[in-house]
Amino acid sequence: MTTVNEILNYIETLAPRSMKMDWDNVGLNCGSRTAPVTKILVALDPFEHVCEEAAQWGADLLVTHHPLIFRPIPMVTDDAAITRGLMELIRHNISHICAHTNLDCAPGGVNDALASVLGLENVEALGAYGGMMRCGTIKEQSLETFLDSVKNTLRCDGLRYCNGGKPVHKVAVGGGACSDGLYDAILAGCDTFVTADVKYNQFWDAKDLGMTIIDAGHFHTENPVVKVLADKIAAAFPEIQVVISKTHTDCAKFF
Amino acid sequence: MTTVNEILNYIETLAPRSMKMDWDNVGLNCGSRTAPVTKILVALDPFEHVCEEAAQWGADLLVTHHPLIFRPIPMVTDDAAITRGLMELIRHNISHICAHTNLDCAPGGVNDALASVLGLENVEALGAYGGMMRCGTIKEQSLETFLDSVKNTLRCDGLRYCNGGKPVHKVAVGGGACSDGLYDAILAGCDTFVTADVKYNQFWDAKDLGMTIIDAGHFHTENPVVKVLADKIAAAFPEIQVVISKTHTDCAKFF
Amino acid sequence: MTTVNEILNYIETLAPRSMKMDWDNVGLNCGSRTAPVTKILVALDPFEHVCEEAAQWGADLLVTHHPLIFRPIPMVTDDAAITRGLMELIRHNISHICAHTNLDCAPGGVNDALASVLGLENVEALGAYGGMMRCGTIKEQSLETFLDSVKNTLRCDGLRYCNGGKPVHKVAVGGGACSDGLYDAILAGCDTFVTADVKYNQFWDAKDLGMTIIDAGHFHTENPVVKVLADKIAAAFPEIQVVISKTHTDCAKFF
Amino acid sequence: MTTVNEILNYIETLAPRSMKMDWDNVGLNCGSRTAPVTKILVALDPFEHVCEEAAQWGADLLVTHHPLIFRPIPMVTDDAAITRGLMELIRHNISHICAHTNLDCAPGGVNDALASVLGLENVEALGAYGGMMRCGTIKEQSLETFLDSVKNTLRCDGLRYCNGGKPVHKVAVGGGACSDGLYDAILAGCDTFVTADVKYNQFWDAKDLGMTIIDAGHFHTENPVVKVLADKIAAAFPEIQVVISKTHTDCAKFF
Amino acid sequence: MTTVNEILNYIETLAPRSMKMDWDNVGLNCGSRTAPVTKILVALDPFEHVCEEAAQWGADLLVTHHPLIFRPIPMVTDDAAITRGLMELIRHNISHICAHTNLDCAPGGVNDALASVLGLENVEALGAYGGMMRCGTIKEQSLETFLDSVKNTLRCDGLRYCNGGKPVHKVAVGGGACSDGLYDAILAGCDTFVTADVKYNQFWDAKDLGMTIIDAGHFHTENPVVKVLADKIAAAFPEIQVVISKTHTDCAKFF
Amino acid sequence: MTTVNEILNYIETLAPRSMKMDWDNVGLNCGSRTAPVTKILVALDPFEHVCEEAAQWGADLLVTHHPLIFRPIPMVTDDAAITRGLMELIRHNISHICAHTNLDCAPGGVNDALASVLGLENVEALGAYGGMMRCGTIKEQSLETFLDSVKNTLRCDGLRYCNGGKPVHKVAVGGGACSDGLYDAILAGCDTFVTADVKYNQFWDAKDLGMTIIDAGHFHTENPVVKVLADKIAAAFPEIQVVISKTHTDCAKFF
Repeated sequence: MTTVNEILNYIETLAPRSMKMDWDNVGLNCGSRTAPVTKILVALDPFEHVCEEAAQWGADLLVTHHPLIFRPIPMVTDDAAITRGLMELIRHNISHICAHTNLDCAPGGVNDALASVLGLENVEALGAYGGMMRCGTIKEQSLETFLDSVKNTLRCDGLRYCNGGKPVHKVAVGGGACSDGLYDAILAGCDTFVTADVKYNQFWDAKDLGMTIIDAGHFHTENPVVKVLADKIAAAFPEIQVVISKTHTDCAKFF
Repeated sequence: MTTVNEILNYIETLAPRSMKMDWDNVGLNCGSRTAPVTKILVALDPFEHVCEEAAQWGADLLVTHHPLIFRPIPMVTDDAAITRGLMELIRHNISHICAHTNLDCAPGGVNDALASVLGLENVEALGAYGGMMRCGTIKEQSLETFLDSVKNTLRCDGLRYCNGGKPVHKVAVGGGACSDGLYDAILAGCDTFVTADVKYNQFWDAKDLGMTIIDAGHFHTENPVVKVLADKIAAAFPEIQVVISKTHTDCAKFF
Repeated sequence: MTTVNEILNYIETLAPRSMKMDWDNVGLNCGSRTAPVTKILVALDPFEHVCEEAAQWGADLLVTHHPLIFRPIPMVTDDAAITRGLMELIRHNISHICAHTNLDCAPGGVNDALASVLGLENVEALGAYGGMMRCGTIKEQSLETFLDSVKNTLRCDGLRYCNGGKPVHKVAVGGGACSDGLYDAILAGCDTFVTADVKYNQFWDAKDLGMTIIDAGHFHTENPVVKVLADKIAAAFPEIQVVISKTHTDCAKFF
Repeated sequence: MTTVNEILNYIETLAPRSMKMDWDNVGLNCGSRTAPVTKILVALDPFEHVCEEAAQWGADLLVTHHPLIFRPIPMVTDDAAITRGLMELIRHNISHICAHTNLDCAPGGVNDALASVLGLENVEALGAYGGMMRCGTIKEQSLETFLDSVKNTLRCDGLRYCNGGKPVHKVAVGGGACSDGLYDAILAGCDTFVTADVKYNQFWDAKDLGMTIIDAGHFHTENPVVKVLADKIAAAFPEIQVVISKTHTDCAKFF
Repeated sequence: MTTVNEILNYIETLAPRSMKMDWDNVGLNCGSRTAPVTKILVALDPFEHVCEEAAQWGADLLVTHHPLIFRPIPMVTDDAAITRGLMELIRHNISHICAHTNLDCAPGGVNDALASVLGLENVEALGAYGGMMRCGTIKEQSLETFLDSVKNTLRCDGLRYCNGGKPVHKVAVGGGACSDGLYDAILAGCDTFVTADVKYNQFWDAKDLGMTIIDAGHFHTENPVVKVLADKIAAAFPEIQVVISKTHTDCAKFF
Repeated sequence: MTTVNEILNYIETLAPRSMKMDWDNVGLNCGSRTAPVTKILVALDPFEHVCEEAAQWGADLLVTHHPLIFRPIPMVTDDAAITRGLMELIRHNISHICAHTNLDCAPGGVNDALASVLGLENVEALGAYGGMMRCGTIKEQSLETFLDSVKNTLRCDGLRYCNGGKPVHKVAVGGGACSDGLYDAILAGCDTFVTADVKYNQFWDAKDLGMTIIDAGHFHTENPVVKVLADKIAAAFPEIQVVISKTHTDCAKFF
């Protein structure tokens, strides 16, 4: 029967461990390499409600982008949401695998998925860590047209942006908190940068540099990879049920 | 004639230097303590366009909340917006004073100004550094009513929020990037927290703790102090023209 | 019904949290503060076989001297003995509490228990951290008589020692790896020091200083506190079954 | 006449300086490179009584495995045994050379000497630092038979061990405090590990991993190299008297 | 018209940026890369009186060896001489370029200029950082003859020296504070070392090693490069007026 | 008979250990606390030729200002002057005591001795570390008169100085490498600062601040304390011969 270890090895062919940041904690976060797998839940995050969904559905394995254990933990108690989720998994014999910064960088990973749903062409790797971000071109269009397209495609509740004053044609994307990549996007000749978790001074830095920056949300810029990942696992392991979380979405709303 | 030093001393009675964070660079960032002052421009930030506004209006002194020189600088060239602004001030003999984290903490400062415009009562200091944030009460209301009030009062283009599930009654405020203050707000028994630059995981942390968190923007949560500061300086130095920047507002928009 | 939290609070009256070393991880290492408790297993260590014993006996709570999680952990898998034990506890809803360096220091704790079983009188606190070790006197005797007594009383399989050349009368004790306390023992005028995990150069340091040092084993010098702790908990919570581990003993033998 | 420097150069052909750990202090610890040498005392350690023996015998040079000055010293007084020994050497114009971690690693050094006296065959380098430890095979035998052989061969007063549950066949050796090498020994497929200064948790780690670990004492696991070293020096410099210390042995005893 | 950037690029062909120390701040310290240049003042240091001289003469560019901004600065005010000079330059639209440790190391730079005026032959690079210092030979002469020659050639007000006891023949030079290069000079077989800012213990170190060390002053050992640099710039840009500072000399005198 | 320890205790009443800098190594650097003392050599430094002088004269104890062991040493060989001196002392059973930064600070110590020989009145402590330096007044005089007086009084071969432009009246003194004390001297209202080991930028800093700075040499500014110290020891222990080194003087000369 297929084991957790076989799934882990397959995921690490998609997102090699060698591509992760030094500080990251990818791979098996919880469970047993030798456990058999028949049902996999896939989600962006292993938050408590996702762990509960996995338990209720009877999953043997939860696969996510973000780690369950980001910083090493000194206790496993029900005092905190992270460890409540962890205990839920352990009690139901559910293992957990994540592919985080390795999946950001990997071909076909987080940033390729984002570039793809945004319709970028001539996509290239961009930025630090061997090219975590991507850039590509799109038919030249007004900022308003592009904003409308981003919002619809990523199903965002809203967007925040600063207009750099140029039409949209060469676009950099960095899913999640990638706003430090602004300078790489400038050097690559981009006019527009789609990322998330943008801070006040970073909106101003972009403006000073004449770059349009769009904060489309951490969840919405990374979530496209979830379907990509689920489809690949399902294709590789046709005997396993692979399902995307139905309960997980962004908790932040716009007003 | 009134000198830069006299204005500096007055500002440091409002926002004592001893209240600043260790890493902060408050007080005179540029110019001359002995220069005479007849015209003061006040703004939240000393960005390049604000320096140009000061030069065009003929100011002798620019007073802001954020520092012009945040990290010590190795060169003063026109390669970067910060140092272009700095050179503009120097060429026009304009001094620059800022009151940053000391003004965040000070009675009557950034956070008291924010609490006041939001209509909080029974306001108390809250959190680290001798109480940088504030909390207070408001007549119990639905979240929607409060969101509407925050957006109108602070003149925000939009808000981001996560609903913690409780009506709004006890509210913590931390102008600017204060989302680390979430735990202090919880400990103080608040149901709602107004701050800015909130990151993905912080929205989720708030949700897990049952706290409504509202990101009302770095500019909009800190800007109320500008009028307070300008009014105080004008009252203390009636012979001096004190004007609030007409060119400065948030560069980030919502879509 | 009695909760884990009530037991935790009681244990921390015996071994106050404020007495722990900075790096230590005492208190609740796993489980739930609100869980009901009817059966407590007490042991020196929360090793895997002890966790299994707790599960087989149907314990709700495991109380030990050493922490289950000594360094924060980045994953909870069956790859390692520590986390196998942790998963066993979680699957059986068993909480885990430890009192480690706080119990070393506390009156009536590890070192008082050791001093007591060795028959020391006029016992006083000794050494760093507010007196983690103890010293006391015993009727003057030959080293051979004392070694025999230590070996029998602590039920050691063997002892290692270096003869400092004096009869035994004033004895320092430091259960576990306390051999750095040698200099404190010298300063207190002791002739003999009972501790564990003594390294080569420390035997020689003792010899140079004319101090007899006896390595009676980490397990055997700390284990006397287990009965003391179990008896106190049983007396404070008469409605709860408190049992000492039957499976745990030292794994190191002498030849 | 043969000089200290010639002996030093010869020893560093046996144990090249490039093999030492970064923190180690090997080579000439005391004396003069140009001094003539006719009598060399060789010992495992340059402890005070060994320095006295060298002085009484009229040695010009003391060669040991452990350094005389392990951490740089701020004073040379008779307050401490180390510096009393150092002053004794200086007053008698005795130079001191040591080969420490370089001799641990070197072919024919500490660990090869240990492997050899234990009768290992097919000996290979093992572990960190280019292979400080060694592993090899022995005719499969019961643990009791092997313990008896180790104790007799190394002339130990006693042994401490933890039974990993397998017969003895593939054995790793790490003279002195090498118990961190446990994982390297596991990876090399060993069933048994002979080392020294083993701590409580390391006995348990070995047990969890199914490895038999034997603590045969720091002195006894390293001392075999002394004869090897003395013989090589004597052969290389036949005009010099080379003698092994008669006063030095382990100060720790078993009971 | 020639721009600041063209001069900068030319200077960095003479003293490549890659030759600078990690901590150094070379290149454009102040001004604008695109500003036109018709008048260049060259000096060893950009001290306040030199900046004033540049302003009075109507320079567009000041080129010096030492940086204007050595450590990044947190404020630009008239409280300190450095920032008074900086403000003077900015107010007069004068850019500033320096070539510091890159010019120390570069062929034809500080140390080659010093070796040349002292009449050394067979000059070679010496010491750390790819050879910051130089050494060469001179016709063998008495120390008194050489001291007289150094003092006259470098126009020193006085010299400090320690006689190493050998005639002068092979000479190391390290302009400015290079006395740490003493050991490199020894290893190269020099008998004499000309440098500056020599401290008490360094005179004694030289004496112990039998090396004559001469402190000819920081200014006087580095100033020869100023003419070299001015001549090269003038030759490369014949349309530009290049002048050496008339106001700058050493402020330290001998008595 | 008087012991080394009695002399040490006496010296530490003059220059209490608690006054030393954290990094300093004062007190007994070499020898034996219990050794008898009949002949003491006193000098500024324990350089090799001073150790030889002590040995030739038959001293039992060498007392100096500077430590013999400044940084802890990893070897005691004849490769370096420091350890050659140390071995000379040990071979002749000479102990060594120093009082370094504690004597700089102590009343009646290095800086009081310097102030006294320069004829300062109204002497007060000045600067960091509880006042390591001193300042005082002298009859107002021209700089030339004062330079002449300093050179004669301290028997300097020469002086280096930078003229701050004021007559000499309020004078700060910091024997040895105290030029960092410049700002303290400014704050105390001094016009003149006598110290040593002054670097290029420090002469310029003084000039910018309008302070006359005089580098009178490390040896010559500290040596006055030697006679003070020798006289005090001789008075306290009349049975002991106390002699000042005849071989030690500054090795640096002026030309």
